[in-house]
Amino acid sequence: MSAADVRGGGHATDLTPRPGDARLARLSLNQKTTPRWTVAEAVEGCVRAGLPAIGLWREPVQEAGAVTTARMVADAGLRVSSLCRGGFVTAADPRHWSRALDDNRRALEEAASLATDCLVMVVGGLPEGSRDLTGARSRVADAIAVLAPYAEECGVRLALEPMHPIYCADRGVLCTLGQALDLAERFPPEQVGVVVDSFHVWWDPEILSQVARAEGRICSFQVGDWITPLPADTLLSRGMIGDGHIDFAMLRRAVDAAGYHGDIEVEIFNADVWAADPDEVVVTLARRYVSHVLGD
Amino acid sequence: MSAADVRGGGHATDLTPRPGDARLARLSLNQKTTPRWTVAEAVEGCVRAGLPAIGLWREPVQEAGAVTTARMVADAGLRVSSLCRGGFVTAADPRHWSRALDDNRRALEEAASLATDCLVMVVGGLPEGSRDLTGARSRVADAIAVLAPYAEECGVRLALEPMHPIYCADRGVLCTLGQALDLAERFPPEQVGVVVDSFHVWWDPEILSQVARAEGRICSFQVGDWITPLPADTLLSRGMIGDGHIDFAMLRRAVDAAGYHGDIEVEIFNADVWAADPDEVVVTLARRYVSHVLGD
Repeated sequence: MSAADVRGGGHATDLTPRPGDARLARLSLNQKTTPRWTVAEAVEGCVRAGLPAIGLWREPVQEAGAVTTARMVADAGLRVSSLCRGGFVTAADPRHWSRALDDNRRALEEAASLATDCLVMVVGGLPEGSRDLTGARSRVADAIAVLAPYAEECGVRLALEPMHPIYCADRGVLCTLGQALDLAERFPPEQVGVVVDSFHVWWDPEILSQVARAEGRICSFQVGDWITPLPADTLLSRGMIGDGHIDFAMLRRAVDAAGYHGDIEVEIFNADVWAADPDEVVVTLARRYVSHVLGD
Repeated sequence: MSAADVRGGGHATDLTPRPGDARLARLSLNQKTTPRWTVAEAVEGCVRAGLPAIGLWREPVQEAGAVTTARMVADAGLRVSSLCRGGFVTAADPRHWSRALDDNRRALEEAASLATDCLVMVVGGLPEGSRDLTGARSRVADAIAVLAPYAEECGVRLALEPMHPIYCADRGVLCTLGQALDLAERFPPEQVGVVVDSFHVWWDPEILSQVARAEGRICSFQVGDWITPLPADTLLSRGMIGDGHIDFAMLRRAVDAAGYHGDIEVEIFNADVWAADPDEVVVTLARRYVSHVLGD
């Protein structure tokens, strides 16, 4: 089966892998890639396309109910590759900071109830009006120290996500994999690990050596492309795999070599992708995943 | 004298430093901050505001003529803090790459004729359709090796500018100061140095140690702010000093401690700043420079 690709609309050059195709064995749909779908619809969509795993977000899971979601996912025979997202622990005000920690404890419990061991941590940006990046980073470290033992109790790892420096001010003060590992390594690997997301780290001149260093710490491997010109809304600036500048196969080989054999989540925030038919999005990303991420 | 600030338009909280004020001794106007001005107008604008230096761009200099420009600048008693820009040496096609090197030789000669020892190098992004970041970076290193001896002959240093990773794909594959120094250190400091531009490097978790490492290599220190939400056009995303998230005084102290005592260039690509009265822009940046860059 061949078809038009999202988003270019051009004729797909690759055949769509069918359910049961061994090349789909690690492919996970991060549900933010198809936000028009409810949790139930996303689960069904994964099954239709033959994807064995799904990355969930807290808000839609809470809408559906965590227990209901866990049952739907299990009934469908899917794995939950990660729960997005905890974090946002940079508040300078101690009461806000404590409330953020409470929310992260709930997120850890939700992850446990969904039978995933990976809570993706987007640590947060600078507080309103602050220019104290060092202080914000230090509050992240303090928060991880408080949460790490509870994560282990829940059987869940805090997966620190280094984010592209474009988000340093307003979303994630952890900017490189090396910096995330510096923090993660203060804790046992059962408590704190890292996310490798192609969109966030592809530019890093140290990425290959840092991925190697991350052996035993990689909780999640996410893929999305860097496209130019960058869409105007930086939060929706990720491209469909293969539409941009990233050499996915090189990164995937490095992550494999670092001993990560878990799911590979496609996470794409993009207005064009979001506007498209979700089923078309899923078959497009399955084709692109096979040719660009698995590669040769 | 007090006045409304560009771009917020709010009442300025700081007094405008007058010509002759010792605090202006290192302040340079990068002419891209006031693109409505010709070279002659920018030179006059610097004199009116008491700025002792100007950063020039090749295109307006070529319009005015390099010899004429050199004479105007000298007659006005200004220094040329840098010439922008050389670089764009990532082409995979050997003929294109060679032509780019020729153009860089001309840029070095222009810098020499303008009596500046600093040619800012924006090295270039990925060639159209390429995902080979390693290859592009390696062609940059090859180009610098060819150009470095000629730079010394011209009495000009190639100032490698690490750029914010937002520009990695399409403008500058050197993304961190550490990476730029790795390359610069292959050559004598008389031939190759680095630019420290706050906008590009403020997020870097290693910035303070890398600035210290850069002792003897810093050819240019540029300042511009990181603002959120980021303007839609990423090439015009820089903010007026003090409008954003950067702790300039901390960075300036680090640069001072690394032994750089040269000019501090204000370079702001921003549609609002460009639309404002250039004289107002210059007095605004002078006020902001005193309070945010010099700080306490």
